[in-house]
Amino acid sequence: MCPEPETATLQADALASGSTTSSDLTERALKRAQERADLNAFVSLDLKTVLDQAKSSDARRSAGKALSPIDGIPIAIKDNYLTRDFPTTACSRALPRAASGVDATIVANLRAAGAIIFGKTNMHEWAFGATNTTSSIGPTRNPHDANHITGGSSGGSAAAVAAGIVSAALGSDTGGSVRIPSGACGVYGFKPTYGRASRHGVLPLSWSLDAPGPIARSLDDIALLLPFFLGSDPNDASTTHAKPFEDQPAPAAPRILNLVGKGLERSDEVELAVRKALDGAEASVEDAEIPAMRSFFAAWEAILHVEASSYHEKLLADEPAAFTSVTRAHLEAGRQITATEAMHAQKLRARFIELLLKDLGDWDALALPTLPVPAPRHGQDRQSFGGRDVTTQDSMTWFCWPGNLAGLPCVSLPVDTSTNGLPISMMLMGRPGKDESLLNIARQFDRGR
Amino acid sequence: MCPEPETATLQADALASGSTTSSDLTERALKRAQERADLNAFVSLDLKTVLDQAKSSDARRSAGKALSPIDGIPIAIKDNYLTRDFPTTACSRALPRAASGVDATIVANLRAAGAIIFGKTNMHEWAFGATNTTSSIGPTRNPHDANHITGGSSGGSAAAVAAGIVSAALGSDTGGSVRIPSGACGVYGFKPTYGRASRHGVLPLSWSLDAPGPIARSLDDIALLLPFFLGSDPNDASTTHAKPFEDQPAPAAPRILNLVGKGLERSDEVELAVRKALDGAEASVEDAEIPAMRSFFAAWEAILHVEASSYHEKLLADEPAAFTSVTRAHLEAGRQITATEAMHAQKLRARFIELLLKDLGDWDALALPTLPVPAPRHGQDRQSFGGRDVTTQDSMTWFCWPGNLAGLPCVSLPVDTSTNGLPISMMLMGRPGKDESLLNIARQFDRGR
Repeated sequence: MCPEPETATLQADALASGSTTSSDLTERALKRAQERADLNAFVSLDLKTVLDQAKSSDARRSAGKALSPIDGIPIAIKDNYLTRDFPTTACSRALPRAASGVDATIVANLRAAGAIIFGKTNMHEWAFGATNTTSSIGPTRNPHDANHITGGSSGGSAAAVAAGIVSAALGSDTGGSVRIPSGACGVYGFKPTYGRASRHGVLPLSWSLDAPGPIARSLDDIALLLPFFLGSDPNDASTTHAKPFEDQPAPAAPRILNLVGKGLERSDEVELAVRKALDGAEASVEDAEIPAMRSFFAAWEAILHVEASSYHEKLLADEPAAFTSVTRAHLEAGRQITATEAMHAQKLRARFIELLLKDLGDWDALALPTLPVPAPRHGQDRQSFGGRDVTTQDSMTWFCWPGNLAGLPCVSLPVDTSTNGLPISMMLMGRPGKDESLLNIARQFDRGR
Repeated sequence: MCPEPETATLQADALASGSTTSSDLTERALKRAQERADLNAFVSLDLKTVLDQAKSSDARRSAGKALSPIDGIPIAIKDNYLTRDFPTTACSRALPRAASGVDATIVANLRAAGAIIFGKTNMHEWAFGATNTTSSIGPTRNPHDANHITGGSSGGSAAAVAAGIVSAALGSDTGGSVRIPSGACGVYGFKPTYGRASRHGVLPLSWSLDAPGPIARSLDDIALLLPFFLGSDPNDASTTHAKPFEDQPAPAAPRILNLVGKGLERSDEVELAVRKALDGAEASVEDAEIPAMRSFFAAWEAILHVEASSYHEKLLADEPAAFTSVTRAHLEAGRQITATEAMHAQKLRARFIELLLKDLGDWDALALPTLPVPAPRHGQDRQSFGGRDVTTQDSMTWFCWPGNLAGLPCVSLPVDTSTNGLPISMMLMGRPGKDESLLNIARQFDRGR
């Protein structure tokens, strides 16, 4: 079991009141990272680099010149975000282990706010997988039980937050890669509306599905970090019309649709935990079904494969050995999809969006478990739940891909603990652009409130 | 040779002054259509339907209630625009010969303005070709010499205007289908900026390249008609940000780049005619080259094939015999293109747009011939010019596809007559959204001014 580590919000308060310093927070984070080296959460970590940042932060704060409430808070960065001072490898053997000298827009935003850019976290190779078992530095391990996986692809970030190394970390999400490890490790993860957060400097997996997002210890932490994610960035055309963060209250009695039925099966234990969480809130909750879920899953999978294969086309041709055999097989498969098949997938995507936003009526949030099962054991290749028997990979994205296919904002929050001591989490999806409102709706279901 | 028929502008003046009536204009148009039945310009024409419309128009005008300056003017419609009262077949054997009961947005705009919806014009089958030699009702013939083609795919519309049957007609343009027959038949054709004119109710060829546009007897006619084309239509998402027509003056001394070099070859006769037209205006004209033109052509061709094959996928599977063998071969070829190849084509498209709009600097219009040769003879499969020997199909789109790949507004205007008595036309392309300014720039090069 993990201790209950402090939240970013508490750290910000402590820094503001002078009861702690950035150097203290950073030294403790480094010490904790060393203690939990078994988790394999970090691919790059440099004492001098982070302690220098902390000293500068403390000097600013002493002079009354703190840059923001998060000035001095260590934040870990998934290894597919470009960072000025750390190499960016996407946990692939293909990329050079040298710093690029460039910050992704969100990293630059955090750095400008004084956050300590605290090393790079382990991830599923190129983010092309949801288990975090395939990585140039080996798999991550779940802080709640090292025999279990973290899920991925932002597994190192979720493990670092869950283990109390850092209070917050960055992830990216193409089919659940923020929410899956957040759910499996019992922390909070947020995927913004597609096109509200800049992907500039985040190595792409699938450009029409990718969204960067924060992983943290509480919903307040998510609210503290979201302003550095949301808003227009001239370097990412998808954000042209993106609005900056602006707190939006949740509706008084939000209308929640609990999605169930064929293609949305889950284990009994997960079902019970999510039902309990839904019943505990002052909200109108109704069950709803979505027809032909698995055909929409096929559309998501086709779009992901085509875009990933297109992005990696040159590297795959020039250096096939740069990829592990599993990832290479995915990329080769993506090259076999015809353009008309991809168009068909895009038409299914349009139909799926219409189905969620129109056919389902006037909802405020859609509820699902984050995962159909608690974090699987390392080495366990298949998962059985609710009459389904699927690959562990497919079980991880089971409920998460719809949020990417439809571009909706999504939040994962822990709601219970399984009989084997692992977290059970639920997910809420909001209407496009209503990220702030979704966050406030989630508060009603938060056991930590 | 053709007589010099009256323009839509003169017809509008005559209607306004009472010196003619819509019934008179319409009867004359019907008579002329009968006289020039050899051109094969019309696929549907119904005396009663059009004469009834004309009577209603005359009644409105007598009562002082004319709906617009074009109330009562007969306008011919390409057979891929849905029309309430005529069948829409796209000159394919596949579609039922019964009226749909629905008007395309632009047809509805014209009808609401009182225009006489004057039958449906012959076109290249499904608009998938630029010669107008493949059609369910047989090829169109050039009014200047019936042994020559009109070009396509809006061949019937251009022939009807050039032969003085109607003063204006509708076309659609995916790789030049408005400009090619306008150029070959010596009339005026305008392709709006992609996304400024609604494609709603126009059967698609390639949805990211298609633009509807007018064909008429003068630039004033084009200006008279453009307000019924431009502007936002809730039924076509590409027009979400489209501005309505608003006259914009041309720059005092517009900067024109005359595009030349590899991939932009033309016959000596065409080169001389366009040079002469360019020299005759008060404009700064410089030559400019575009590198790797033919690779961008390949990108245009791939995008067109993929989108057309995607649109026709079901019909091709269910009723392959509905297509002529040539069109079927194109559609089958489109199905073989992989999604990553299509992505590559889209990347080339982005590069091409950057090249035109940024690398070429601060131009007001780009100049090209409309066609590298005058209208080819029927039965002539290849064209030779400037050291090139290409299919007649490729010679027709030779200069026109760049306007579609980059989504630019384009206008074709006649500038001279060839030694064999056929029109020679030039084309100007403007900056995106500057349709009105382009039209006024074109006036400086217009021998009809």
